[in-house]
Amino acid sequence: MSTEQRLIDKYFRRDNSPDDVVAGIGDDAAVLRPAPGNELVAAVDTLAEAVHFPRGLASRFVGWRALAVNLSDLAAMGAEPSWALLSLSVPAADESWFSGFASGFFRLAEEYDVALVGGDTVRGPLSISVTVLGQVPAGVALTRSGARPGDRLFVSGNPGAAALGLQSLQGLAGNERYQPAFLQPHPRIALGRALRGLASAVIDISDGLGMDCKRLADASGVAIDIDPERLAGVAAAGDVANALSGGDDYELAFTVPAAQRSKLPAQFAAVEIGEVCHGRGVNMPGFDDPGLSGYDHFRNEDT
Amino acid sequence: MSTEQRLIDKYFRRDNSPDDVVAGIGDDAAVLRPAPGNELVAAVDTLAEAVHFPRGLASRFVGWRALAVNLSDLAAMGAEPSWALLSLSVPAADESWFSGFASGFFRLAEEYDVALVGGDTVRGPLSISVTVLGQVPAGVALTRSGARPGDRLFVSGNPGAAALGLQSLQGLAGNERYQPAFLQPHPRIALGRALRGLASAVIDISDGLGMDCKRLADASGVAIDIDPERLAGVAAAGDVANALSGGDDYELAFTVPAAQRSKLPAQFAAVEIGEVCHGRGVNMPGFDDPGLSGYDHFRNEDT
Repeated sequence: MSTEQRLIDKYFRRDNSPDDVVAGIGDDAAVLRPAPGNELVAAVDTLAEAVHFPRGLASRFVGWRALAVNLSDLAAMGAEPSWALLSLSVPAADESWFSGFASGFFRLAEEYDVALVGGDTVRGPLSISVTVLGQVPAGVALTRSGARPGDRLFVSGNPGAAALGLQSLQGLAGNERYQPAFLQPHPRIALGRALRGLASAVIDISDGLGMDCKRLADASGVAIDIDPERLAGVAAAGDVANALSGGDDYELAFTVPAAQRSKLPAQFAAVEIGEVCHGRGVNMPGFDDPGLSGYDHFRNEDT
Repeated sequence: MSTEQRLIDKYFRRDNSPDDVVAGIGDDAAVLRPAPGNELVAAVDTLAEAVHFPRGLASRFVGWRALAVNLSDLAAMGAEPSWALLSLSVPAADESWFSGFASGFFRLAEEYDVALVGGDTVRGPLSISVTVLGQVPAGVALTRSGARPGDRLFVSGNPGAAALGLQSLQGLAGNERYQPAFLQPHPRIALGRALRGLASAVIDISDGLGMDCKRLADASGVAIDIDPERLAGVAAAGDVANALSGGDDYELAFTVPAAQRSKLPAQFAAVEIGEVCHGRGVNMPGFDDPGLSGYDHFRNEDT
């Protein structure tokens, strides 16, 4: 048996075949059974070492985060996750690394009821690409494009927390208590589901609240005004600038028609931080262009 | 607009939204509509520069191959491709590279009626991970595990062609006329569909006919005897050893009950090269262990 095959069998093949997996790992492809009447929701995200996580980060956190960033995209669509496919590029067949990675990946997968149904392992610089497939009843998927003037802007969690946690991990500034927000984020699947039929637009704020609110505003053809005092109330450590630009927060920003605000379940602790207006872009008193705050892998080459 | 966003918009967002794409590129995730009564078939494969294709290979071939290797996995399941997601790691935002990559990717996507519905671009060493989603009527997906003693083994195409083409591209031995087999393989989707209800087991031979026949034999709990003279008749340049170990052939090996052989449509030019027997592994007179011939990314570390 090849080493690749042995590692996949040992760490990634699990026996818990749910009813909706006709064939999982071990054939040329997986065969899956979506529930009748559902639409399929699909997202892919890649994490590369030294770009998306620090070199040498314990592999259990790498495994957790590789799945979490994708689940967050499903949360933003109001979808329930069902299945995942994993493509791993690793510099060597290091068993302890694989073991840790699998433990982190499957801890989150079990928590969110996701079955790993396929994958691929190649030798190369450390990089993890996960595709997550979810389901949503036909016609109810949430998008970025439905925000209307008068709607109110909400955000979940404490934007900026992951960035402060990462800085602390790297021995820079930041704050140790925020490390879990970076290492083991909990994507907002339950919140996304609760927003079906309620939110007019949703986005996850993984690239930073500022940039992602601008994307939502652009997709909806509106402007978003953020209230700096309200944002300070939920921003990690009260740091508004970091909350706008930090990134790596797997939280949701969403808009709700003003008349529907009371229907938002209190359990999710989502907080109103702004309003949708006519116009374009993101505005916040005291900031030149909050929509430019955020993460762009190629920004240095912008011309 | 970020560079990443601009490149995605320019090269990867196409307006041809088929009926089965509710939301494609441009939101947190894609929303797709499988046909009622279908099962979903999903595969992921990653190509890394200098591992799966030579450094400096023209990007239109990289784009073509990145999709082709995944379509071949769907072919082996008897599935029709529907949608693809693309995760690109590139060292720089090189527009001419993107343009070439997109032209190759979409030429094949259009030929096989696949819609690109999502993706992700990060900066890093050149590596392309594609997830392909296909559909198959419930219950008819083909697998590796149904071969029974007495079944006959068939293979499509000319095994070993891609390896000879690659050698020629690299200025080694090989043969120039086989370069297209490496650069622009045509996955056997139509053959896979024709094998529904006919083949007892199917696998694609991308890791080499020898290793992949062993996988099929292991999954089915049988042995496979390959006839070296029959294999020589279809092997590229008549080279049997290269046909067993070459790899990168996006052809199908499959087994058919002897009594059903006549039902195999002649148009696919699949040729009988062996037989399924009781026992284990792959046997061929004159070869010690044909099942060990093939590609394993981690073989050097096998202990």
